Amino acid sequence: MAKYFAKVIVMLKKGILDVQGKTVENSLKTLGFDKIADIRIGKHITFEVEANSLDEAKEIANAAVDKLLYNPNIETYTIEVENSTGKL
Amino acid sequence: MAKYFAKVIVMLKKGILDVQGKTVENSLKTLGFDKIADIRIGKHITFEVEANSLDEAKEIANAAVDKLLYNPNIETYTIEVENSTGKL
Repeated sequence: MAKYFAKVIVMLKKGILDVQGKTVENSLKTLGFDKIADIRIGKHITFEVEANSLDEAKEIANAAVDKLLYNPNIETYTIEVENSTGKL
Repeated sequence: MAKYFAKVIVMLKKGILDVQGKTVENSLKTLGFDKIADIRIGKHITFEVEANSLDEAKEIANAAVDKLLYNPNIETYTIEVENSTGKL
């Protein structure tokens, strides 16, 4: 068994209002940052997977994300699984 | 003025207990995912910056992150600023 490193980004779908992002955007504007727009805040999830191959690791990671880590009604995700242990 | 696209990842520092990640890890274990470990959950923030150059856009983005988007006591961040408008 080898260790693989998975990186998942979960974001709200384009059409969904990002309330947290909007709030931060307004705060930045009051701080003088008027050149910043369209802030969207999602989740960046990392974890280790123990598996016999990269393909198996990808399968496990995808299943975990499908099962628990995102809401298919309002979110989309991208997932990357690598051999080495990444930094972030 | 051109539009630039910024992508920021904010994660808890290595030594800091990630309570949210721990909770998700335990939930995954009860769902049968016992090959997954060390889940860490951070933020993935994207926004647009209007600026005269890529360097100016980077400066604005860095200042915004320093000012509002992360907590230097417990978090670290990486930031990427690009010319084109990215997907996520």
